[in-house]
Amino acid sequence: MNFLEERIVTDGVVKAGNVLKVDSFLNHKMDIALMERIAKEFKRRFGHKPIDKVLTIEASGIGIAVLVAREFGVDMVFAKKAKSVNLDGDMYVAEVESYTHKKTNRVIVSKKYLSEGDHVLIVDDFLANGCALQGLISIVESADAIVEGCGIVIEKGFQEGGHRIRNLGYHLESLAIIDAMDPETGAITFRQQ
Amino acid sequence: MNFLEERIVTDGVVKAGNVLKVDSFLNHKMDIALMERIAKEFKRRFGHKPIDKVLTIEASGIGIAVLVAREFGVDMVFAKKAKSVNLDGDMYVAEVESYTHKKTNRVIVSKKYLSEGDHVLIVDDFLANGCALQGLISIVESADAIVEGCGIVIEKGFQEGGHRIRNLGYHLESLAIIDAMDPETGAITFRQQ
Repeated sequence: MNFLEERIVTDGVVKAGNVLKVDSFLNHKMDIALMERIAKEFKRRFGHKPIDKVLTIEASGIGIAVLVAREFGVDMVFAKKAKSVNLDGDMYVAEVESYTHKKTNRVIVSKKYLSEGDHVLIVDDFLANGCALQGLISIVESADAIVEGCGIVIEKGFQEGGHRIRNLGYHLESLAIIDAMDPETGAITFRQQ
Repeated sequence: MNFLEERIVTDGVVKAGNVLKVDSFLNHKMDIALMERIAKEFKRRFGHKPIDKVLTIEASGIGIAVLVAREFGVDMVFAKKAKSVNLDGDMYVAEVESYTHKKTNRVIVSKKYLSEGDHVLIVDDFLANGCALQGLISIVESADAIVEGCGIVIEKGFQEGGHRIRNLGYHLESLAIIDAMDPETGAITFRQQ
C-alpha cells in the first residue's frame, strides 16, 4: 500500500451506499502535510509534461489544486458551480450531475482564464461516475486548450468514471483506486497499480 | 502601498454596487505566488501566537487557508455551507447571511474537528458586513476553543464588519482595507495602516 492507501485504511470510514468518508484528512479537516505529499506525487507523475495551468472545481478540490499548482510553479483556476441562471457569454459552461447531492449543477469557467493552447492538468479529490471530470475536460477543450492529464486523489474503481475517461485516451492518474468497500466490516480493497 | 494593494489597483475591477472583482488573481484564477506571499504575511503578523489550527469557509477561502496552515505547520478545517436541513447533532452550526447572494446559509463544522482549547486562526479572502466571520467566531467559541486572530485578505472598510469585530476585541488583521471605491473612475482608496 502507498502512503495514501494506508491513511485511507487508518482514517477512512466506509458507509452504506458506497460512501467513503475521508473528512478527517481530505475534505473537511485537511492534513496539510499529507496533501503536500499528494501534490509532490502528482508532480512526480506529470512532471514530464509541459503543464502551465492547474484546473479544479470548487470546493474541496481547491486545497489539493493550490498545492499541486505550487509544485509546478503555475497558476490555478477553479471552476465555479453557477449560482444563477443569468450567465453572460464570457463563460465556458458544462452540466455536471452530482453523485453526492443528486442534482445537476452548471459548472463555469470565465473565458478570460482558459486560453487556446494552455497545457492543463485537471485535479480533483474524488472520481466516481466521472461527471465532474468530464465537465472539466469539456471546458478545457471548449477553450482549445490541451488536457495534459487528470490527477485524482481517490478513485472509486467500482464506478464507471475512471474506465470511461481512460477509454477516451486521457492520461488519468489516481493515487488510490478502490475496487470494493464493505460497510459491514469496513474493509477496503485497493486496485494493484 | 503594499504588494497586495498594488495588485488590487493593477488588476481589480470596481463595479457598481460596491463590488470589487479580484477573480483574476484571488477567487477564480489564483495567483499562487501572490497567495504564498499573503500566507507569509499572515505568518509574520500572527507568528507570535500559539496557533494550532486554521479555520476558513468554503469555497474561495480554502486556497489561502491551505497556504497559511502550511506556513504554520498545522492542519486546516473549512466550514461547509450546509446542503440539507437534516443536520445531525455532531455539528457546530452558525447562520450566515451572504452579501453576494442575498440569502442565508447555514455553516457547519463537525464537532470532531474543533476541540476545547484549540488555538484557532480564522482566515478568509473578504470581509464586508462580517456575517461570515462572526459565524466562524461563534463556531470556534461554541467549541470552547480560542480565537487567536482573524486574517483577512481584503476588507471593505466602508462596510461595518471590520469595525464591529475589532470593537468586540478580536485581533483582526486585513492586508488591504478599502475605504472607498468609485465605479465611474475605478479609483480605490486604501486605509493607511
